[in-house]
Amino acid sequence: MEKIVIVLGLASLGLSHGAHAQSSVSVSGVLDAGLRNVSNSGLPALTTLVSGSNATSRLAVQGTEDIGGGLSAGFHLEHGLNVANGTATTATQFWDRRATVSLADSRFGEWRLGRDFIPTYTNWSRYDPFGHVGAASAGNLVSTTPVGPLRNSFGTNPNTTVRANSEVQWLLPKNLGGVEGSVMLTKAGDTSAASGANNVKGFRLGWSGGPLSVGLAHTRTRNDLTVAGALTDSSVGGIYNFGVVRLSAVVRHIKQADAKQTNQLLGAWVPVGAGEIRLSVQRADLSGRVGAAVVDANDAVQVGLGYVRSLSKRTALYTTWARIANSGAGTRTISGGTSGMAGGGTSKAIELGLRHNF
Amino acid sequence: MEKIVIVLGLASLGLSHGAHAQSSVSVSGVLDAGLRNVSNSGLPALTTLVSGSNATSRLAVQGTEDIGGGLSAGFHLEHGLNVANGTATTATQFWDRRATVSLADSRFGEWRLGRDFIPTYTNWSRYDPFGHVGAASAGNLVSTTPVGPLRNSFGTNPNTTVRANSEVQWLLPKNLGGVEGSVMLTKAGDTSAASGANNVKGFRLGWSGGPLSVGLAHTRTRNDLTVAGALTDSSVGGIYNFGVVRLSAVVRHIKQADAKQTNQLLGAWVPVGAGEIRLSVQRADLSGRVGAAVVDANDAVQVGLGYVRSLSKRTALYTTWARIANSGAGTRTISGGTSGMAGGGTSKAIELGLRHNF
Amino acid sequence: MEKIVIVLGLASLGLSHGAHAQSSVSVSGVLDAGLRNVSNSGLPALTTLVSGSNATSRLAVQGTEDIGGGLSAGFHLEHGLNVANGTATTATQFWDRRATVSLADSRFGEWRLGRDFIPTYTNWSRYDPFGHVGAASAGNLVSTTPVGPLRNSFGTNPNTTVRANSEVQWLLPKNLGGVEGSVMLTKAGDTSAASGANNVKGFRLGWSGGPLSVGLAHTRTRNDLTVAGALTDSSVGGIYNFGVVRLSAVVRHIKQADAKQTNQLLGAWVPVGAGEIRLSVQRADLSGRVGAAVVDANDAVQVGLGYVRSLSKRTALYTTWARIANSGAGTRTISGGTSGMAGGGTSKAIELGLRHNF
Repeated sequence: MEKIVIVLGLASLGLSHGAHAQSSVSVSGVLDAGLRNVSNSGLPALTTLVSGSNATSRLAVQGTEDIGGGLSAGFHLEHGLNVANGTATTATQFWDRRATVSLADSRFGEWRLGRDFIPTYTNWSRYDPFGHVGAASAGNLVSTTPVGPLRNSFGTNPNTTVRANSEVQWLLPKNLGGVEGSVMLTKAGDTSAASGANNVKGFRLGWSGGPLSVGLAHTRTRNDLTVAGALTDSSVGGIYNFGVVRLSAVVRHIKQADAKQTNQLLGAWVPVGAGEIRLSVQRADLSGRVGAAVVDANDAVQVGLGYVRSLSKRTALYTTWARIANSGAGTRTISGGTSGMAGGGTSKAIELGLRHNF
Repeated sequence: MEKIVIVLGLASLGLSHGAHAQSSVSVSGVLDAGLRNVSNSGLPALTTLVSGSNATSRLAVQGTEDIGGGLSAGFHLEHGLNVANGTATTATQFWDRRATVSLADSRFGEWRLGRDFIPTYTNWSRYDPFGHVGAASAGNLVSTTPVGPLRNSFGTNPNTTVRANSEVQWLLPKNLGGVEGSVMLTKAGDTSAASGANNVKGFRLGWSGGPLSVGLAHTRTRNDLTVAGALTDSSVGGIYNFGVVRLSAVVRHIKQADAKQTNQLLGAWVPVGAGEIRLSVQRADLSGRVGAAVVDANDAVQVGLGYVRSLSKRTALYTTWARIANSGAGTRTISGGTSGMAGGGTSKAIELGLRHNF
Repeated sequence: MEKIVIVLGLASLGLSHGAHAQSSVSVSGVLDAGLRNVSNSGLPALTTLVSGSNATSRLAVQGTEDIGGGLSAGFHLEHGLNVANGTATTATQFWDRRATVSLADSRFGEWRLGRDFIPTYTNWSRYDPFGHVGAASAGNLVSTTPVGPLRNSFGTNPNTTVRANSEVQWLLPKNLGGVEGSVMLTKAGDTSAASGANNVKGFRLGWSGGPLSVGLAHTRTRNDLTVAGALTDSSVGGIYNFGVVRLSAVVRHIKQADAKQTNQLLGAWVPVGAGEIRLSVQRADLSGRVGAAVVDANDAVQVGLGYVRSLSKRTALYTTWARIANSGAGTRTISGGTSGMAGGGTSKAIELGLRHNF
């Protein structure tokens, strides 16, 4: 049995693979499709083929080069897509999920330049049993309607609740006894929310030891819509592995001017043979004012229950049930349903899908 | 001589290739360019560099995973492009040719989800000696002007004469004694022709044995423009290999409301040393009415003659001559000519090109 | 130590790698990001994350097939991208840097079809120590404001100072005792400057021997904006390797109707240990008239000084300083600064970045 490390990129330079070659370039990704039935209260139920309910459908080209002396260089390009129709997630921003080049030192950490996650998102999504995707995604209660601090800061345009352009990041080295983290800022030139070129600063700090993992993060965004004060987006969370179950808890607090939003999530992963049961409960609490409008009443609660059955290390079938109950004028829904739900409505969904890593 | 199966995707997971790895991910495609001279009657002839006259220029990323026990998973992403200028065939739908994820069982067949061909197209293009591309493409007489059942159902927007979004397909297993086929429907949520999100249902059934191969298919499309009745699109065809020549015959029948279209095609492939002569004759017959307008007179006949000379298994030179004679108000042309031909005109083309598979 | 040539594309055809396989398909590219501070006179300085200052960030898929008997086929797809935000350089023209298919003969040269460089660009950029990218790019004084022969021929739309669509190229074979060159024309069908479909003809001829390399090129473009006369774009240049320093000199002359532009560039590369110092001085001289407007006064001078430190064969750190001094109404700037500089202003920049080849 012979080991082969694929050295794609070097082929073009006429080089061959040898014992000293520590470089690798890979093409990998995920394709995930499923059927989802969504019932928004007062509206007809709708069943559609959806993409990425267990993991976002994507294509990545990435690699690292071991330069020697503890130094390495790396790159990562990642493109999201909708397997239902073949469209890029963002047609004008093809490598929307990540575009970075890095220089890393085993003692001094990694410098990473380009488009990547913001710290608060990383320290939020990792505590979501549903990985921030699908019918029960923790994202359903984050950036959707009604107007709160996020929509007041970004309108309906690209925003920085997940990723930011033009990041300069420094990540801690990996040998700090379980401590990990990063500091970042963006250098985008203009700060128009509509162009997605916000002025963002943030950091993340985490610690893992034995069954416990905890983390906190803080991100601040300024743009042309935040004249009344920067948007701040913070989170603190943890996860504990009891063996029979892993439990998570996380709080995300978002604030801009007089508007606040607090999301609280409890999650659980329960291994069952070749499968896993996943459960989450999340509450979004709006408070304060957007301009003159009081937004306190527009809260929501989401419950999600899922089962993932691995067929192999790379392929799985999954099913998820989820329900969002809005209060006040809240119109948060699970995507894929009939549009036009009245404020305070309930959105329910069940989905069944196939996820394949490559 | 050593065999190596490329295991691209796994490289990113830090895994190495071993005797048990049955997975493969590949990057492949076709680039095909040529010069085409088109003469539309009454207009100046025009010579342009065209893409994909022997096989559509494309880039594909695909792979399969043998899960064991007769089960396998697979994915396929395919992107069409114009080698003359580097543009994607559909800028906003990058993986326009195919985006699917599959789970297949050797006994129970394959479930395939995503964007793919419709059954009638598959059972039509395979009988075209020109593979539905180039100057003599069978497609020249399918979805072009004048208004018939197709344009009445789709306008000039994306349509389902070739592919459909949001397909749920079931394909027969491969060990049925020469029988093959599929059943499909789409779950697209809305049914606006302009968005390409039609409601499509269809099936295909074929049989191959010795020198003979036959097939039939039926596809039905509903959308916001087919209120007067669904569009139906059926085909039946066959091919027989006499050794010195392969002959094909196929009929495609398209109907919506009071408008009908029948296309009949005869094809021949004649091996000549390292090359092949290809010949096709096709007739398109419109009948009935679109609204109050009688469309019967707008028929057309196309003749195509080509020669493909293989330089290797992957590379070929080719030349094709084709001619379309329209009746009535028909303005079907071979693409690449001067626009503005009067109804009933004749379009002629000759092309010479280079096709390379990679 | 075992040699492995990667045979990507063939994997999809179910073929395996053997001793006779001379084919190769590769995925390769460059990611390059850096911070650039630009000061345009009279305006606030601005620091932004920029992409491709040492080499344009890109992804390429390419390959060749040795057909035998001196014949080979090849293809090349190349996509430019902005690593700061993940966007494609040209969203609607994904493979904007190159899309070609080729047939080459060791005695008779190469036929290449598709989108590629124009001859004059090739014989201009190779003499620029900064490779036509970054703060000190020779391109800063080519196609930018004010209006001269280029803007009069192309407006602000895609143009052919760098690449052209629909090229038919013939390149000399490689065994001509140091002589190399090409002849090209475009067959684009329409000649609207706005669509980038110009009518272009050109050639390039060069010679290399020992330390000396010289070349000349001429390109002529016609489109719907050049009714008063074709645009001609010529260059002649050379480079001499003195060992301790390589020196280059090149002149580019651009003319359309009554407007002329002459760019003169002197360049130097000085190896210093594992690094290299780079220096260029360029002058752009406008003359004649655009319509009734005399453009003579709008000249500019650029000076660039840089240092590139290789960390490995694939990875480098670099820094560049550059300054453009405009005369008359000239508003040429180094990109990334505050916009709105007055005519005759000065643009200065310093940048620091990381470039990684894969």
